[in-house]
Amino acid sequence: MAVPNVVIVGGGFGGLDAARALAGAPVRVTLLDRHNHHVFQPLLYQVATASLSPGDIASPIRWILRRQQNVEVLLANVHAIDPVAKRVEIDAGDAIAYEYLIVATGATHSYFGHDDWAARAPGLKTLDDALAMRRRMLMAFEAAEREPDPAKQKRLLTFVIVGGGPTGVELAGALAEIARQSLRQDFRRIHPESARIVLLEGSPHVLVNFHDPLRDAARHALERLGVEVRTGSIVTQVDADGVLWRPAPRPGSGEASAGPDASAERISADTVLWAAGVAASPIAKSLGVRLDRIGRVPAEPTLAVPGHPEIFVAGDICALEQDGAWLPGVAQVAMQEGAHAARNILRAIGGNPLAPFRYRDYGIMATIGRGSAVGEIFGLKISGFFAWLFWIFLHIFWLIGFRNRFVVMTEWAWAYVTYQRRVRLITGDRAEG
Amino acid sequence: MAVPNVVIVGGGFGGLDAARALAGAPVRVTLLDRHNHHVFQPLLYQVATASLSPGDIASPIRWILRRQQNVEVLLANVHAIDPVAKRVEIDAGDAIAYEYLIVATGATHSYFGHDDWAARAPGLKTLDDALAMRRRMLMAFEAAEREPDPAKQKRLLTFVIVGGGPTGVELAGALAEIARQSLRQDFRRIHPESARIVLLEGSPHVLVNFHDPLRDAARHALERLGVEVRTGSIVTQVDADGVLWRPAPRPGSGEASAGPDASAERISADTVLWAAGVAASPIAKSLGVRLDRIGRVPAEPTLAVPGHPEIFVAGDICALEQDGAWLPGVAQVAMQEGAHAARNILRAIGGNPLAPFRYRDYGIMATIGRGSAVGEIFGLKISGFFAWLFWIFLHIFWLIGFRNRFVVMTEWAWAYVTYQRRVRLITGDRAEG
Repeated sequence: MAVPNVVIVGGGFGGLDAARALAGAPVRVTLLDRHNHHVFQPLLYQVATASLSPGDIASPIRWILRRQQNVEVLLANVHAIDPVAKRVEIDAGDAIAYEYLIVATGATHSYFGHDDWAARAPGLKTLDDALAMRRRMLMAFEAAEREPDPAKQKRLLTFVIVGGGPTGVELAGALAEIARQSLRQDFRRIHPESARIVLLEGSPHVLVNFHDPLRDAARHALERLGVEVRTGSIVTQVDADGVLWRPAPRPGSGEASAGPDASAERISADTVLWAAGVAASPIAKSLGVRLDRIGRVPAEPTLAVPGHPEIFVAGDICALEQDGAWLPGVAQVAMQEGAHAARNILRAIGGNPLAPFRYRDYGIMATIGRGSAVGEIFGLKISGFFAWLFWIFLHIFWLIGFRNRFVVMTEWAWAYVTYQRRVRLITGDRAEG
Repeated sequence: MAVPNVVIVGGGFGGLDAARALAGAPVRVTLLDRHNHHVFQPLLYQVATASLSPGDIASPIRWILRRQQNVEVLLANVHAIDPVAKRVEIDAGDAIAYEYLIVATGATHSYFGHDDWAARAPGLKTLDDALAMRRRMLMAFEAAEREPDPAKQKRLLTFVIVGGGPTGVELAGALAEIARQSLRQDFRRIHPESARIVLLEGSPHVLVNFHDPLRDAARHALERLGVEVRTGSIVTQVDADGVLWRPAPRPGSGEASAGPDASAERISADTVLWAAGVAASPIAKSLGVRLDRIGRVPAEPTLAVPGHPEIFVAGDICALEQDGAWLPGVAQVAMQEGAHAARNILRAIGGNPLAPFRYRDYGIMATIGRGSAVGEIFGLKISGFFAWLFWIFLHIFWLIGFRNRFVVMTEWAWAYVTYQRRVRLITGDRAEG
């Protein structure tokens, strides 16, 4: 009998843990990703804010799985899944047949229907996004140094971050530190510490997935760093001059929630960073099932796609309720789902019934600049310096590869002592003007 | 009396040492560069071959000069120099006036009049070049893994390096090691160690600036790594299928040295890397003096531009003879010239006569893969493992910033023990095919 073949689409947390759960199993595994590397997404904002290099938080997927002999890794863009022919369509008209499929392609930014905002307000999902964000941010300080007009200079030194989830909070905190500390000595005409950093969040709280005292702790830590935190603020426009925002409508008031209008207020800002909307990877559409509002696949409790017991979803592309709430789009959920999907495939191959998935929540954390974090670990709420130390250790030991752990630890220790951001390099596009 | 202002164009080795030589002097210094970072060029090939991250070999120019209060750093593209109006023209029609000017804009690749080769055969001068070269090289292995046609696969696994100077030799050695060691376990369908690596050099020797036993030592070290070294080979064509080359004409035979012809031989290769021609930065043209064959400014012995005692040149843009030979385009020459030009400006300000420049040659070195190097230090010829260790220490202590030294040393130690290239990340363009 031929060895069954399992195709995994996506080399993020979900896909990688799915592949690992199949180690030693009598299956042939093909893992497809459009990048050659796995990115440790929780630290992506540190690349964007010039604390870490891309190489510190990413490893080639082939290298991670090099010892697992039943896995083949292919660098490929997956255009569509054909669930009838049981094939994955990749570049140049090629296709890869599967017997079992795990789709773990994650999520992308969503601009709430305003895709034209994307060019003005970059988001943060890939290493290239992080390098583009870093370039944008550092170029603003460079342009301000050269700008004689005080109004334009002020606009160049205004940074707006849209979205008060962990990514937005971490970006705002890091950006405030860059302006107040890292760049202090570097310029002659501008005072980077006078930069204005605004965090806009539509809901009444930052870190809305966290519990109450932690939300407040995060807000206060941001305000201590000089970040203007504006909760209950809906962005209605992103344009060449900055953003328009207005107060969020009261629940149930029936007001429309988007579109520029008279009550909107303008913030003139050269740099707008997007940490707000999320939409599941568009590959979900080709599965032929009804998707939820943000494009996710409503999975069976077994993580199988309805009507397709041979296709499983894991991570941000998977919509699953547990105890009356949707599972959040975090790494831990993706990892556990990936491994569970893989084990269910082994159950199916062995002729056993599939098991339902149950997420074990070990906790969530977010840092706010240097020396401060908030978190809920095993139900325990922690904040401040101790939380930050815990966050550091947790993330270092979670990183893939001993070398990465060691280097990142060294980087952090160095940055902590010197306030320096070592990788303030503008690469990619040339200086624009 | 107003403080004289000195403008330095270029933040490479020449410009940086010029700025440093002006520390504490009663002048206002403006340093212009189109990048925000200084690159330690001797290690650029290590970024291209995925051993080091951009942040390991580059530092923001502002940060390097942050404590030197008489220096202002501006990120700007310099389009031209107007030696009559004594202005440097930058982006958006802006201009910066100078009383004294140091031009240290370096060199770029030259394709011997075949600029259309540039897209096929990238060169290595900037961090972006290095990342593009890394992407190209790693993508070739990825594409080969997916290619079912054996002829096409062979073409994907053939790498041609044009130019047998230090950059070409170091690239070829590093590439051979990647194929033979670092990627060995990563692929399932191809054998990276079967990759063909060809080094083409027009002159009869690699490392033509080195003396004879060292040239041979370098050649043998490359051949031990499995590199095909073809000296006396002129590239006549670079196209979609690879390169055409033919034997170099005998000196004095009067044969033309370029253009495809019947006697040419083809090497089918997907990846062609350019480490051959060099041309001085085009900014030299705006100085209104006669340039040499490769576009350099023939400087006075004082490094002043003929007819312009207020303009100095340093580094690869400067053509200067010493003891009957042209000074080579290496970092040491640029650094010494930059500092000398700055001191001559201080002499001029003080009403003293300018001093002629004299290059002190401390030696040259090149590495060939892991554990092997050749060098001439204070006239002493060294090669092999000891030379490599010396090369390592020299380059580590020359790097700017203690942190960089420490991190790069750690990287190298790690790579040496494990054979791993930690930063095998493909960033930038998406997977193409």
